[in-house]
Amino acid sequence: MERSYRLVISCPDQVGIVAAVSDFIANHQGWITEAHHYTDPASQWFFMRYVVRASSLPFGLVGFRQHFEPIAERFGMHWYLNDTGVNKRVVLMASKQEHCLSDLLYRWRSGELAFDIPCVLSNHQDLRDYVEWHGIPFHHLPVDPSDKGPHFAAVSETIKTVGADAVVLARYMQILPPDLCERYPSAIINIHHSFLPSFVGAKPYHQASARGVKLIGATCHYVTSELDAGPIIEQDVVRVNHHNTVEDMVRLGKDVEKTVLARGLRYHLEDRVLVHDNKTIVFA
Amino acid sequence: MERSYRLVISCPDQVGIVAAVSDFIANHQGWITEAHHYTDPASQWFFMRYVVRASSLPFGLVGFRQHFEPIAERFGMHWYLNDTGVNKRVVLMASKQEHCLSDLLYRWRSGELAFDIPCVLSNHQDLRDYVEWHGIPFHHLPVDPSDKGPHFAAVSETIKTVGADAVVLARYMQILPPDLCERYPSAIINIHHSFLPSFVGAKPYHQASARGVKLIGATCHYVTSELDAGPIIEQDVVRVNHHNTVEDMVRLGKDVEKTVLARGLRYHLEDRVLVHDNKTIVFA
Amino acid sequence: MERSYRLVISCPDQVGIVAAVSDFIANHQGWITEAHHYTDPASQWFFMRYVVRASSLPFGLVGFRQHFEPIAERFGMHWYLNDTGVNKRVVLMASKQEHCLSDLLYRWRSGELAFDIPCVLSNHQDLRDYVEWHGIPFHHLPVDPSDKGPHFAAVSETIKTVGADAVVLARYMQILPPDLCERYPSAIINIHHSFLPSFVGAKPYHQASARGVKLIGATCHYVTSELDAGPIIEQDVVRVNHHNTVEDMVRLGKDVEKTVLARGLRYHLEDRVLVHDNKTIVFA
Amino acid sequence: MERSYRLVISCPDQVGIVAAVSDFIANHQGWITEAHHYTDPASQWFFMRYVVRASSLPFGLVGFRQHFEPIAERFGMHWYLNDTGVNKRVVLMASKQEHCLSDLLYRWRSGELAFDIPCVLSNHQDLRDYVEWHGIPFHHLPVDPSDKGPHFAAVSETIKTVGADAVVLARYMQILPPDLCERYPSAIINIHHSFLPSFVGAKPYHQASARGVKLIGATCHYVTSELDAGPIIEQDVVRVNHHNTVEDMVRLGKDVEKTVLARGLRYHLEDRVLVHDNKTIVFA
Repeated sequence: MERSYRLVISCPDQVGIVAAVSDFIANHQGWITEAHHYTDPASQWFFMRYVVRASSLPFGLVGFRQHFEPIAERFGMHWYLNDTGVNKRVVLMASKQEHCLSDLLYRWRSGELAFDIPCVLSNHQDLRDYVEWHGIPFHHLPVDPSDKGPHFAAVSETIKTVGADAVVLARYMQILPPDLCERYPSAIINIHHSFLPSFVGAKPYHQASARGVKLIGATCHYVTSELDAGPIIEQDVVRVNHHNTVEDMVRLGKDVEKTVLARGLRYHLEDRVLVHDNKTIVFA
Repeated sequence: MERSYRLVISCPDQVGIVAAVSDFIANHQGWITEAHHYTDPASQWFFMRYVVRASSLPFGLVGFRQHFEPIAERFGMHWYLNDTGVNKRVVLMASKQEHCLSDLLYRWRSGELAFDIPCVLSNHQDLRDYVEWHGIPFHHLPVDPSDKGPHFAAVSETIKTVGADAVVLARYMQILPPDLCERYPSAIINIHHSFLPSFVGAKPYHQASARGVKLIGATCHYVTSELDAGPIIEQDVVRVNHHNTVEDMVRLGKDVEKTVLARGLRYHLEDRVLVHDNKTIVFA
Repeated sequence: MERSYRLVISCPDQVGIVAAVSDFIANHQGWITEAHHYTDPASQWFFMRYVVRASSLPFGLVGFRQHFEPIAERFGMHWYLNDTGVNKRVVLMASKQEHCLSDLLYRWRSGELAFDIPCVLSNHQDLRDYVEWHGIPFHHLPVDPSDKGPHFAAVSETIKTVGADAVVLARYMQILPPDLCERYPSAIINIHHSFLPSFVGAKPYHQASARGVKLIGATCHYVTSELDAGPIIEQDVVRVNHHNTVEDMVRLGKDVEKTVLARGLRYHLEDRVLVHDNKTIVFA
Repeated sequence: MERSYRLVISCPDQVGIVAAVSDFIANHQGWITEAHHYTDPASQWFFMRYVVRASSLPFGLVGFRQHFEPIAERFGMHWYLNDTGVNKRVVLMASKQEHCLSDLLYRWRSGELAFDIPCVLSNHQDLRDYVEWHGIPFHHLPVDPSDKGPHFAAVSETIKTVGADAVVLARYMQILPPDLCERYPSAIINIHHSFLPSFVGAKPYHQASARGVKLIGATCHYVTSELDAGPIIEQDVVRVNHHNTVEDMVRLGKDVEKTVLARGLRYHLEDRVLVHDNKTIVFA
């Protein structure tokens, strides 16, 4: 994959934005390999994502930003520019269950997903050996149920120390405190084992079984201070029937959870997810 | 399709039920063409559905019932026996939207679904011509929003008069009163335009759009006195993305609604649905 | 839906196309409501579809075309511009089976799909009453198996006479002669009852059953002179199992066929399908 | 999971089979936890699978077999009885790609799938470290392209030596010789990276891309001496569009391949797959 820049923009819609951006790219002989834009008809807000080959442009990341800044100002853009050659640093957090973590580690070591893992955090020791076989640091941060403060302080400190760009809660079974959620908006990714908004909170498969639903699902979403209510990035479902016990649902659900999380993380890593009003635009 | 009997049983589980039933059938040289049984491990309740060719047995429906009664008593069975040669009588109720009604009428007139339609009831006149082209009586029963009592009295009276075995709410937009629901347990079938239990009540596509879900769905369920909370017969979903407005969701949802309703009705007509504790066993 | 113009372009890729087109639109204060573009990396061919509100532009269809022509010439574009206010004229062809025709007529009469039906052609009389109830002319063009020439001459003449923009083979069971296919490239839409390229030709459900596949499908494609080998617009599948006889597959398949055909036709009507090298770009 | 016996039967259909088998179980106070039977209407062949709690019976595996033998003889049954407490021994074969192998190893080490892995065979060294971390022997059996005989002799010898019950070709990229295939009927499981019968043979994703299909798939099947033509156990598909390059299809396909293989292997391990005339009955 040739090195490219990803330009991601959101701003109030008006005539001329695409023209201005594409003129800018064309005037510098930029070679666009992917292009998406979209205007939300309700809010009249505009969203855009361009991927441009780095070698086609006469400047680097810094030069690009300097030259583009006047256009961004003209249209009041929220925007950023990322270099595909620089991996995001993603802290993975898990508990005892390994299906999501194991799946992400496979995608990482096979190169299917391009990101760096500064460390794995867990409130249990169970997954240490497997993580360390990959050469990835494993930090055990136990939780004292009667005082979870020190645990979250340690989590917060580690995220800061390693310079994480994102955090993935790969079936990490604790609820993050609101202040931690708010410190990293659109950067903490959770996988919830239900088709939200059905079955918020604990034991969703038990809830699904009790309600007698015919499909169960999983939801990948950004974490906000409200439990299981953040912007949804990706969802999927799998069919169940009366034969399936809660244990079967847990097993079937695992396959959906890891697939949905991997897709959601891919979208995030590739700067395909734009958040607006607790909803996502996903340029997939 | 050769004429057959459908034997449907539920009772507390114990050793010997299948042996007793299959002995009974075998001793009368019955030719079984479909067989399902299942025990719910939580409640230890047993469910069974056999389809037996009528011509292979030495007795008819009445004789079958008489001969089988002692076995049913021995095991404390809830049971019934239906003749595939006798169509169920199903009253269809609709409002202004025709997608579900039109789909059911297609399946009826093409013979894909075997059932009789004594009449269609609607609180609007919009669908009269289309229904009457099929030679089916159309009864317009208007609703007075300030007093819905007379409407439901007329509905109730009509269901009774035509001798309906089942009622299908094919996007009939009124909430049936509890006493009417309770009079026909597991016999009033509704299609709800969301993936229940998400988005109970009115305007589920607006709710879905506001929440930013990535899949929308439909649910076919038996009506009980609690709104949108009855036993689920069938569900399905379709993918949506940020491009899709509420209007798109309504359009995409219609295709799911009619498919899910048709599948649910088929299961019901073929005696494949057994209800237990607000959940369904569907021998599909 | 406000009246809009759809601008559809394909040409060899080069720097500056998007800039030129979006400049053009912006300079005339055009309000873009949908925008897609894509470059095929193998052939380096560029594809684009813009939807622009008619009322935002200072000219009509003719003026738009005149003003845009120089840009089109500069980049060697194949292009066309359609007015969403002008329906395409689509001849529907069917045989005896009504599921696809019935589904399209529902979508037409409910306004879900915007198109005109100058007539329905069939080699059988079975569907006459149903079609005529809609006020649509029904032409019975019988086929003489020993000499199909007159039939196809009549078909061809009718398509020409009514001024059709497209033809839909809604389970029309005859193979069109090559010269007829070639006269209407990317304008004759067929629904094939298998997941192509599996099970080309006759009786695909029998073939699927014999092979023991676990999913069956349907394919909507443009007709070319090679049987079942034209550019694929849309496909979908449904799960089957050992319980399902060929008759069951036919029934299950019908639901997939009509859905896939309706989606394919919608893409075509909305100018979302661009054909390149026997493949389609579908800006869905 | 309590220890159980799985009784699997196939024979020509006749009246009284289910009665005889269920009588036998009931007379010995056997507690049936799963029951499936099915008659193929075309061949009039009968298939059955019962799961019975071991502790409910007065005899063990040997006694069960002895007592059941007369019934089996009476009906001309092909049958076998397995103990859920005894794992099948499955040799895994892979090449360089790890996605399927890695997925199976995860399911093995987490206990999701109950089977023993006497060894992994590969014609490459790439996966050695990962396999050996699990404590599983890894045998590198290189292939000489000019004379593959010694390779297959070594494969065959290893399968025999370790006493394998089944072999899984987890993206092993060599075609097994016919005699090896025939020695293990319904015991060698392959995952093919297309939706068979489309795209038999090499490079199916390239074939799929060239044909412009809108869904790609994977097929888990028993290996027979005819390439990619054995009985299909399980299939699934994933949607692709014009944006997806062959490389994208390879990536998307991997997720389908591993899921389909895992489901197919589970069915095999749990004795849910019965083969008849190159088709499978899967009591899922």
